[in-house]
Amino acid sequence: MVVTPWEVKGDVDYDRLVKEFGTEKIDSALLKRIEKHTGEIHFMLRRNIFFSHRDMNWLLNEYEKGSKFFLYTGRAPSGPVHLGHLIPWVFAKWIQDKFGAEMWFQFPDEEKFLLKDNLSLEDTAKYTRENMLDVIALGFDPKKTHFLIDTKHAGIMYKEAVRIAKHITFSTIKASFGFTDSTNIGAIFYTAMQATPAILPSAMKKKNIPCLIPLGIDQDVHFRVARDVYPKLGYYKPAILHSKFMAGLKEGGKMSASDPMSAIYTTDTPAEAKKKINNAFSGGRDTVEEHRKLGGNPDIDVPFQYLRMLLEPDDKKLKKIYDDYKSGKMLSGEMKQICIEKLNTFLAAHQKKREEAKKLLDRFIFKE
Amino acid sequence: MVVTPWEVKGDVDYDRLVKEFGTEKIDSALLKRIEKHTGEIHFMLRRNIFFSHRDMNWLLNEYEKGSKFFLYTGRAPSGPVHLGHLIPWVFAKWIQDKFGAEMWFQFPDEEKFLLKDNLSLEDTAKYTRENMLDVIALGFDPKKTHFLIDTKHAGIMYKEAVRIAKHITFSTIKASFGFTDSTNIGAIFYTAMQATPAILPSAMKKKNIPCLIPLGIDQDVHFRVARDVYPKLGYYKPAILHSKFMAGLKEGGKMSASDPMSAIYTTDTPAEAKKKINNAFSGGRDTVEEHRKLGGNPDIDVPFQYLRMLLEPDDKKLKKIYDDYKSGKMLSGEMKQICIEKLNTFLAAHQKKREEAKKLLDRFIFKE
Repeated sequence: MVVTPWEVKGDVDYDRLVKEFGTEKIDSALLKRIEKHTGEIHFMLRRNIFFSHRDMNWLLNEYEKGSKFFLYTGRAPSGPVHLGHLIPWVFAKWIQDKFGAEMWFQFPDEEKFLLKDNLSLEDTAKYTRENMLDVIALGFDPKKTHFLIDTKHAGIMYKEAVRIAKHITFSTIKASFGFTDSTNIGAIFYTAMQATPAILPSAMKKKNIPCLIPLGIDQDVHFRVARDVYPKLGYYKPAILHSKFMAGLKEGGKMSASDPMSAIYTTDTPAEAKKKINNAFSGGRDTVEEHRKLGGNPDIDVPFQYLRMLLEPDDKKLKKIYDDYKSGKMLSGEMKQICIEKLNTFLAAHQKKREEAKKLLDRFIFKE
Repeated sequence: MVVTPWEVKGDVDYDRLVKEFGTEKIDSALLKRIEKHTGEIHFMLRRNIFFSHRDMNWLLNEYEKGSKFFLYTGRAPSGPVHLGHLIPWVFAKWIQDKFGAEMWFQFPDEEKFLLKDNLSLEDTAKYTRENMLDVIALGFDPKKTHFLIDTKHAGIMYKEAVRIAKHITFSTIKASFGFTDSTNIGAIFYTAMQATPAILPSAMKKKNIPCLIPLGIDQDVHFRVARDVYPKLGYYKPAILHSKFMAGLKEGGKMSASDPMSAIYTTDTPAEAKKKINNAFSGGRDTVEEHRKLGGNPDIDVPFQYLRMLLEPDDKKLKKIYDDYKSGKMLSGEMKQICIEKLNTFLAAHQKKREEAKKLLDRFIFKE
């Protein structure tokens, strides 16, 4: 198992990550505490898709004392957005709605440029624009959502990044990210840029504002490093909510933007989406007869995972699908058909909002 | 002997630096070539204060083909400006006048913050403002001179810095700057920011413009590293002119801003300047009798060095002082008196222009 911001490989053991990264599991007490404020529990929390956290009880203490938090998450533009990317963003949009939270959304357009040989800043600029449309399409409040693009907003970010960087040695970076002496100095510095938005609103307003970061757990390492630094600069450590990875189309592995055959992109046509789901790894049996008799395995069935993680928020409907598939009443083709319909409904709506987002871009990009 | 951007220690052997750094000595053929364009040779060239270079013949080839160059130098704000700092700037101002060159002047206000424990960004912000006044006071053309302040102008600089950084590994930085695994990641990245102004005008105008960097030879290492990178990004390697260090007030060592007893600051009062010169290390003999008989040593006499390097541009007058001192005709007290007069005339004029500079600050700071 490898889980770094640049590579996720092998069977991911989430319990082991909680232990190794030193995070806490999200338990029912925490869910109840969140529900007190939100009136409901988002299906990604109910289904343990967000499964781990740091300092959520502290964040809620602060909130209950009247200290509102802001949200921070991001997207390193290096290709088109796929369904897996949407998980933390869909969830963050829900948090924004429920808590009236400001959202600072970072597009570190230098990150993948520094880490990949064959990606230019012109490429990442193009993807930044494309990826911003996907974020806007999810319905974030333009009045409360601020996009930060590293190369564009370095004028406000770099100063805070160097404050953070002063407290991080190369030894720490080497141990945390697996870098070597052959790593380039931009990649070495980069984590300070990723750490910056968690304190930027506080720095700009000259007051300490709590921060909540929903993210895929592969990104946790940046904050394992930076959370030691923030208090030295007089800032709170941010709270974090960690999500699991979305399964790729093939057996095992996560959905990966760098492997087009593993991913459903938000811009896929209905025909492409249909074809991809029809070819997706299934939890069904080799023959219809066997399937009817022994039942399928929804826990490894990729189309079912997409319903569970994103496309079917209704627990009752999801359970029926689960049970029917497991009992053999529902065949793999039928499971795929349900997924394709849900997916194409989702994509059609998303693509419509994505088109409308082109007019909104300017409202979301932060004005210094 | 130690010569790094952060420390100059011991007897500096300039011939050895030329060899070790792989630069070229400035010879009479080059001086003649420069004179063809300037009509005269600046006393800092005549007196070998600028003693070494890189690619000056290439720069003049380009100039003679009609390709104008721009100037780039800088000042890392960490304290008040002293006479030693002025050497490359006075010279650069002359180049600006003679060649009609644009000047990009960098104030890397994060550099010393990252490298010193007890310096805050608030300190460097204060010194940036103070140091800018000294640069303006030297008479640079406000229409052709652009100040870059790293934390302020990172919005245009960071993007080019990451392009450079991608081509520099930690191994290179370690070997070049003597950094270790305990060095902070901001300091490790910093050289990419110092390398940036040499290509920034070219990047902004999307055309390759030759660059000339006059600097103290302790800063050469940044460009030894970056000059390998520029061509990979499609830019020229900049030409460089290297100056020697100004002697400190005490025996041996260079004038150092971090040692107030070694330096004459541009803001010293006439009484302070007088006292410092009177206490400066002298090349005289122990007694007047001995001095009259054996003569003094102007080559180690600190007040004479200040006349030679900055305060007495007239070669004839300087030679007479040299000869009179060496023959014993001139006593150390008389040498000091000449230096004090010249120095206080210089400081009075500088301080007047420095005061006037406060109104000009805004014209010099680059507008994005």
